[in-house]
Amino acid sequence: MSPQMPPAHPFDDDKLKEECGVFGVVGVTDAANFVALGLHALQHRGQEAGGIVTHDPKTGFNQARRMGLVRDNFTSADTMEELPGSIGIGHVRYSTAGNKGQTAMRDVQPFFGEFSMGGAAIAHNGNITNAVALRRELIERGSIFQSSSDSECIIHLMARSMGRQIPDRMEEALRKVEGAFSIVAMTRTKLIGCRDPLGVRPLVLGKIGDGWALASETCALDIIGAEFIREIEAGEMVVATDKGVESHFPFRTKKSRFCIFEHVYFSRPDSILGGRSVYETRENIGRELAKEAAVDADIVCPVPDSGTPAAIGYSLQSGIPYAMGIIRNNYMGRTFIEPTEQIRNMGVRLKLNVNRALIKDKRVILVDDSVVRGTTSRKIKEMILDAGAAEVHFRIASPPTAWPCFYGVDTPQREKLLAATMSEDEMRKHLGVDSLRFISLNGLYRAVGEAEGRNNASPAYCDACFSGEYPVAPSDMIEQGFQPRTAAE
Amino acid sequence: MSPQMPPAHPFDDDKLKEECGVFGVVGVTDAANFVALGLHALQHRGQEAGGIVTHDPKTGFNQARRMGLVRDNFTSADTMEELPGSIGIGHVRYSTAGNKGQTAMRDVQPFFGEFSMGGAAIAHNGNITNAVALRRELIERGSIFQSSSDSECIIHLMARSMGRQIPDRMEEALRKVEGAFSIVAMTRTKLIGCRDPLGVRPLVLGKIGDGWALASETCALDIIGAEFIREIEAGEMVVATDKGVESHFPFRTKKSRFCIFEHVYFSRPDSILGGRSVYETRENIGRELAKEAAVDADIVCPVPDSGTPAAIGYSLQSGIPYAMGIIRNNYMGRTFIEPTEQIRNMGVRLKLNVNRALIKDKRVILVDDSVVRGTTSRKIKEMILDAGAAEVHFRIASPPTAWPCFYGVDTPQREKLLAATMSEDEMRKHLGVDSLRFISLNGLYRAVGEAEGRNNASPAYCDACFSGEYPVAPSDMIEQGFQPRTAAE
Amino acid sequence: MSPQMPPAHPFDDDKLKEECGVFGVVGVTDAANFVALGLHALQHRGQEAGGIVTHDPKTGFNQARRMGLVRDNFTSADTMEELPGSIGIGHVRYSTAGNKGQTAMRDVQPFFGEFSMGGAAIAHNGNITNAVALRRELIERGSIFQSSSDSECIIHLMARSMGRQIPDRMEEALRKVEGAFSIVAMTRTKLIGCRDPLGVRPLVLGKIGDGWALASETCALDIIGAEFIREIEAGEMVVATDKGVESHFPFRTKKSRFCIFEHVYFSRPDSILGGRSVYETRENIGRELAKEAAVDADIVCPVPDSGTPAAIGYSLQSGIPYAMGIIRNNYMGRTFIEPTEQIRNMGVRLKLNVNRALIKDKRVILVDDSVVRGTTSRKIKEMILDAGAAEVHFRIASPPTAWPCFYGVDTPQREKLLAATMSEDEMRKHLGVDSLRFISLNGLYRAVGEAEGRNNASPAYCDACFSGEYPVAPSDMIEQGFQPRTAAE
Amino acid sequence: MSPQMPPAHPFDDDKLKEECGVFGVVGVTDAANFVALGLHALQHRGQEAGGIVTHDPKTGFNQARRMGLVRDNFTSADTMEELPGSIGIGHVRYSTAGNKGQTAMRDVQPFFGEFSMGGAAIAHNGNITNAVALRRELIERGSIFQSSSDSECIIHLMARSMGRQIPDRMEEALRKVEGAFSIVAMTRTKLIGCRDPLGVRPLVLGKIGDGWALASETCALDIIGAEFIREIEAGEMVVATDKGVESHFPFRTKKSRFCIFEHVYFSRPDSILGGRSVYETRENIGRELAKEAAVDADIVCPVPDSGTPAAIGYSLQSGIPYAMGIIRNNYMGRTFIEPTEQIRNMGVRLKLNVNRALIKDKRVILVDDSVVRGTTSRKIKEMILDAGAAEVHFRIASPPTAWPCFYGVDTPQREKLLAATMSEDEMRKHLGVDSLRFISLNGLYRAVGEAEGRNNASPAYCDACFSGEYPVAPSDMIEQGFQPRTAAE
Repeated sequence: MSPQMPPAHPFDDDKLKEECGVFGVVGVTDAANFVALGLHALQHRGQEAGGIVTHDPKTGFNQARRMGLVRDNFTSADTMEELPGSIGIGHVRYSTAGNKGQTAMRDVQPFFGEFSMGGAAIAHNGNITNAVALRRELIERGSIFQSSSDSECIIHLMARSMGRQIPDRMEEALRKVEGAFSIVAMTRTKLIGCRDPLGVRPLVLGKIGDGWALASETCALDIIGAEFIREIEAGEMVVATDKGVESHFPFRTKKSRFCIFEHVYFSRPDSILGGRSVYETRENIGRELAKEAAVDADIVCPVPDSGTPAAIGYSLQSGIPYAMGIIRNNYMGRTFIEPTEQIRNMGVRLKLNVNRALIKDKRVILVDDSVVRGTTSRKIKEMILDAGAAEVHFRIASPPTAWPCFYGVDTPQREKLLAATMSEDEMRKHLGVDSLRFISLNGLYRAVGEAEGRNNASPAYCDACFSGEYPVAPSDMIEQGFQPRTAAE
Repeated sequence: MSPQMPPAHPFDDDKLKEECGVFGVVGVTDAANFVALGLHALQHRGQEAGGIVTHDPKTGFNQARRMGLVRDNFTSADTMEELPGSIGIGHVRYSTAGNKGQTAMRDVQPFFGEFSMGGAAIAHNGNITNAVALRRELIERGSIFQSSSDSECIIHLMARSMGRQIPDRMEEALRKVEGAFSIVAMTRTKLIGCRDPLGVRPLVLGKIGDGWALASETCALDIIGAEFIREIEAGEMVVATDKGVESHFPFRTKKSRFCIFEHVYFSRPDSILGGRSVYETRENIGRELAKEAAVDADIVCPVPDSGTPAAIGYSLQSGIPYAMGIIRNNYMGRTFIEPTEQIRNMGVRLKLNVNRALIKDKRVILVDDSVVRGTTSRKIKEMILDAGAAEVHFRIASPPTAWPCFYGVDTPQREKLLAATMSEDEMRKHLGVDSLRFISLNGLYRAVGEAEGRNNASPAYCDACFSGEYPVAPSDMIEQGFQPRTAAE
Repeated sequence: MSPQMPPAHPFDDDKLKEECGVFGVVGVTDAANFVALGLHALQHRGQEAGGIVTHDPKTGFNQARRMGLVRDNFTSADTMEELPGSIGIGHVRYSTAGNKGQTAMRDVQPFFGEFSMGGAAIAHNGNITNAVALRRELIERGSIFQSSSDSECIIHLMARSMGRQIPDRMEEALRKVEGAFSIVAMTRTKLIGCRDPLGVRPLVLGKIGDGWALASETCALDIIGAEFIREIEAGEMVVATDKGVESHFPFRTKKSRFCIFEHVYFSRPDSILGGRSVYETRENIGRELAKEAAVDADIVCPVPDSGTPAAIGYSLQSGIPYAMGIIRNNYMGRTFIEPTEQIRNMGVRLKLNVNRALIKDKRVILVDDSVVRGTTSRKIKEMILDAGAAEVHFRIASPPTAWPCFYGVDTPQREKLLAATMSEDEMRKHLGVDSLRFISLNGLYRAVGEAEGRNNASPAYCDACFSGEYPVAPSDMIEQGFQPRTAAE
Repeated sequence: MSPQMPPAHPFDDDKLKEECGVFGVVGVTDAANFVALGLHALQHRGQEAGGIVTHDPKTGFNQARRMGLVRDNFTSADTMEELPGSIGIGHVRYSTAGNKGQTAMRDVQPFFGEFSMGGAAIAHNGNITNAVALRRELIERGSIFQSSSDSECIIHLMARSMGRQIPDRMEEALRKVEGAFSIVAMTRTKLIGCRDPLGVRPLVLGKIGDGWALASETCALDIIGAEFIREIEAGEMVVATDKGVESHFPFRTKKSRFCIFEHVYFSRPDSILGGRSVYETRENIGRELAKEAAVDADIVCPVPDSGTPAAIGYSLQSGIPYAMGIIRNNYMGRTFIEPTEQIRNMGVRLKLNVNRALIKDKRVILVDDSVVRGTTSRKIKEMILDAGAAEVHFRIASPPTAWPCFYGVDTPQREKLLAATMSEDEMRKHLGVDSLRFISLNGLYRAVGEAEGRNNASPAYCDACFSGEYPVAPSDMIEQGFQPRTAAE
């Protein structure tokens, strides 16, 4: 009955998945169009659902929340006419498995709350690590939750605050919250952005005409023609209105710990992080990998599409020619709608095909961004060997992913992570390849610009998925039995 | 009412468009699943609509024809259950502008005809150049046409044939037909393939278990796990059944004139043409182009995605580093559904973004496969310059496209083709780039394997779109006033 | 996939079903709107699908054919904009079981043919009794059939005619056709109506402004505000244009044999047949029934809705008070969409409910229009008894239905008709009621205005479903083994 | 996007509209099927949207809320599988104008709240007259409202209660609420029903096997085969579980004031109110009307369908024959989907047609249930006169509707009510009929069983829409400026 299945990430079910992208704009005509474009540019951060809230003096707050892609839901004149106003925010989300249809609709952000001084909407990228405890306490005091989302706590905390202004209430609410958050929020006239004290998830500020935009990544500024001003700092809150942007730092200061995996995989290659394009950083990772893990071979092939920049870097560093040994079907963007059993069994073939005539008798280096469960890696290796490759060498542009993320990334349980249960050599055997090498954690730090590698005493990034060192204790998870890394590990 | 708009070709409206892909299989369980997969692999040859016909002894002939993509229409258990049987054929099509919705549904192939000895269905890739005259004559004699398609003539010619067997009738019908055709047809038990005497459009034969498959390209054999046996020859008809494949040559023999543009753009890079992957041929084209049209620069960037293999070849030949200066949005696969005016005006930005931090202050070589109207090329140039590139050099992996195709490719009217009205230098000025160079026709022939270049006395390929030399006179078009190239041109 | 299930006849699956309604108009602005309204008024004659064809000098012939109700398909501005022009025809149809979805779409009328002098579309109410033989012959001569409909023969016969004008060709075609037909057809400028020599199915002419309309029933003239001019006569062909209406009689003259069941059930009560409202005729039938089959009781209740006028007549004649003992659910118009097993088992309760407090301890006369299989009658009897009725007396406003119709009405096979296998008393026992009486055939003739009852030598109506006397031999059916009534029966 | 427009009330936009129907069941297998059937039977009480909540030990609380009719939304196996459990409640609603699409979805009941001791869902028929004030107060204390519905207050009041059990919390919440409410609610194991102290809206109890059902009307018990036990009393709360039904009276006792308009129009004719079928009461009203307002005429015609029982009563009392002078189109159930301007202008003709041949030259008494704005009455009068009626006499089965309802019925603003601005004679002139008579308020009381007529000192019913005497002061409306009747009026 439901007209569209939640679209899967293009090409690969075996990746970590960013759970959200956020966007907001103030001071433009027909803000909803800009929000739709911004969300479209951020679609890689969440494909399952999206929502937009706007405010117009005549109609008040307007909202539309839909399952599916932005381009399918938020582009028709019909929908956009229902979203008038010069200020608006939006959210795209990837949802955890098992929620679907009607139920999940409740969880689609932005969330909206009506307070005594007026309404506010918030869109949240990240994850609140004490949400279970907060929720329990709020329900006991009479709050009615409408969703299963951790983010809804923020609205209820705001509702109970005695703050006079909505930004005050938001500050007060966020001080009670632990974990990672990059938030874009709005009142009738104010566009608000805020990052948690560690700045785990990204958030950037742009200027468009006399108006302002906030976005998870700079690629969303590009699509609307906005100028990239700067990144919002860790622990910073900005309030943008017609009159300008005000900034302050409501939380106790900490050293920033930005998510290093944004460099590896989540962010779009044309976004700018730390003054450099993500594409260049990934090319750098490929170069580092070529230095750390050289091997004699005929061609370097990317696992499309996320392995491409690192494969180019590897080729440039090693001098081994770059070639497209695996071709993806341009029409694979969404998974098949309700495929029959027979079709489902074709699996990865629906999405990509080996360039048989090219691969035959060659020694092939395959560059991929990460290995999670390893299921796709095995299938790709089989396709390459079926096509007659002489040797297959895997080179991975990130260290082994051995720990789950609790800061807004969808990771399998620890025991499903290949690197949590196997050594590098066991993984090589499991995948059945001639060699398998991951970049070292130090190498990755060098590639993102830390010339000295990782400062183990005070690392510059959150790298918990590789190191098991969690910069914020995941208290809900610990209560549920999760055991963080012990000193011995 | 119609739930989905006809999807445009991904990324570029300014390309020549192959009008069809055909596929058939016999001797397998649940043939419709295989046909759906084959059509999915051929989706790049036609995205507007698709159809499948199967035959099962119990239910007789079954058919489903739908607007939209294969993955959206031909994968649900519901649809596939309506298409039982061990033999089936299918067709994907791109349709000429202006026909949409209900009307166009009449034109979706395969076409089916009930004859006195039983039914037959046909799927046609190509174009019949005397269809208007044939149609007029058939109507005068009492045939009722159901579509506006040139291909329907074949069914009516078959209905009027006195042949005892369906393949006999098909032969008789095809002898009356001029132009280009690669046909896949079926009766209750026979899978029939046929190419016109010049073999303008591709058609290949594969083996799967004890059964047989016919497809426009080998990538459609790969997806179902079939073995690629050989190309059907120009002028050949094959009849495949449970018992094997019979071949004969019903037409007067001519020298083959395969479409050279299949190498340049239409075919998928992982398909095999002439014993070599199309990817390698395109890399070759890039190498030839680097030899013919060298220029000093910092990076070589493809115009994604079709320019990629030639850009890699150009980089390998020239030694100038390859880089992804333009990033496409992974979710652009289909165009926006009914975009508002404001969104539509964003144009190419919805689909790609320049890697600003990478491009800035660089001398950039942009490699594209072809220039048709030039509209997209101008927009891309502007984006590159806006991002701060120092120089922009266009290199095109095909000669100037100056003549329309009448053999199954959708081309603009001649006066809309940039190369029909401008010299190379005028085009350079029109596009506003620092240099613009097309590969020479001889260079293209060399890249596809003709070491001596083009044999002008007897060219090995149909290159009418570049040369204006039409191997079959387009008689309907001439009657409507089209003037083929004169000796003077 | 298909958004709506074919709607069943409201309320009762156990009725004979008229298979079609036809409508046409010429000389009005936006003819399609009028056709849609006319078809809406005729929806009771066919609920499964509908189609409209119009002609406009700019766009040529336009058509839309859809599964489902007129109000759901032919009212949106989108659809109507695709149907411009001042002349148009339309068709609603009820389809035989087993055909559904994509397949059945081929059978939705009007049918369209392109001839050498121009196009024509036809909509047919009735049934061609030699269609199988005609089809076989046409296929042998090279016609390609696109549907499984008997009506398509007419278009192919027209295509093969040598007539100069379309009306000439239509005459020639119809002379080869046996059975019942009321046809509305159109060319670019002419609206054509034609009834078979016996005039089995209805067709009426109306005037609207300077234009003309043709319809199955007068209720379709009322809805568009057209004036009812007269019925088209048996064997008459009319051609209406901007300039007026011409009439002639192309067939050999026979005595008219209009379908008497149109009076009993098919036609809408507000339509006019023979100068009198169908409602009044049905009230008359109730009065005759009260005379023929009086019984002592407390209340007279109709089986809604078709039994209502006869129940009112029975009450007026007998003096027994009329009451609504059975209430139908206003929202039952269409059947449930894909009901679960449990819901499906509720059966007739979904559609109607007994007025328990009213029925309790009463002697109830239930008046229904006909008994086909008897399945619904049994369920209604059970509901009435469950509610505590003291006695249940069935009175049926038509004679026992013992023979199938071959002239455009969907009847079960003979052995499924209750009256074909049981006497009146056996039926009474089978239904389990205190008494059961059908009106006599003579009584029915009196009620429709034949004061002397049925003239057995030359009956005024087609009453084959009651009498087994078929005015046109059903030749296809006889070939397939149907045995018409023998003298002995 | 939404496939179907909110359906309008069948036939007449010019009626008062009941805003809701409620239903619940406990102790049955697959409760959702029963709830769907019950809501289908109550569809006349609300056609815009519906919702069902169930509870199953394995899946917890499940819910589905949809725009449109029950038969279209809550019958497919897909939907029902998502609603497992042996306890469930449901709600159908008619919504106030202006809310549509996504926005209105928030307002679709049942509402659900998670409390510290578990979840509860409630469905509310009626209207809370102090909801605005309650909402303001709750927001000030930190409640987040998700809908614009007055009913949501109840859930928030429950959330803030200190009661240990959900029924306790509900009692406490309802004591703070003013106005009319018939509520069906559920916890994991308890089905709860409650009526306000005046019992303005109906609620009945039924038994089905070992389980129990609650419904707005008895017709919803009939459809599932449940036995009608009794009406819930004014001010009563019942809690039904597997083990039986407990009852208590948590509110201060008042004299019951049931809505008299339920007898006139809202309830279905086959429902039982006060021990008698609503049909019989309406027939009684017709008889009273014939006594109070006799006139010489040829036929008595109902305005279909709601005027039918009163017309039958009028005919039986007066001896003037009953006839169906106006025929409605069986397929009018829902309004046209997006009709073109031209079609929309046809107005009432789309829905009904005059039986012209019957009406001509007759003196016609038209019986309708009520006159609200008078717009439809005028159109019907014109149709009757156009058909040639000699005289038209309107007889209305309710007193003049001069005051808005604030207890759960959608009424136009006072100035739109014809009877609020005109005397009976002015209305007669405005409608342009030969005579117009309403039943007196005393006559109506007699017809519903009060032999002495209305006891003005202590009326047995709520008749505020006729009398302007509001049994509960509409405090929100008074705050907004509504002026109740003054003594002078």
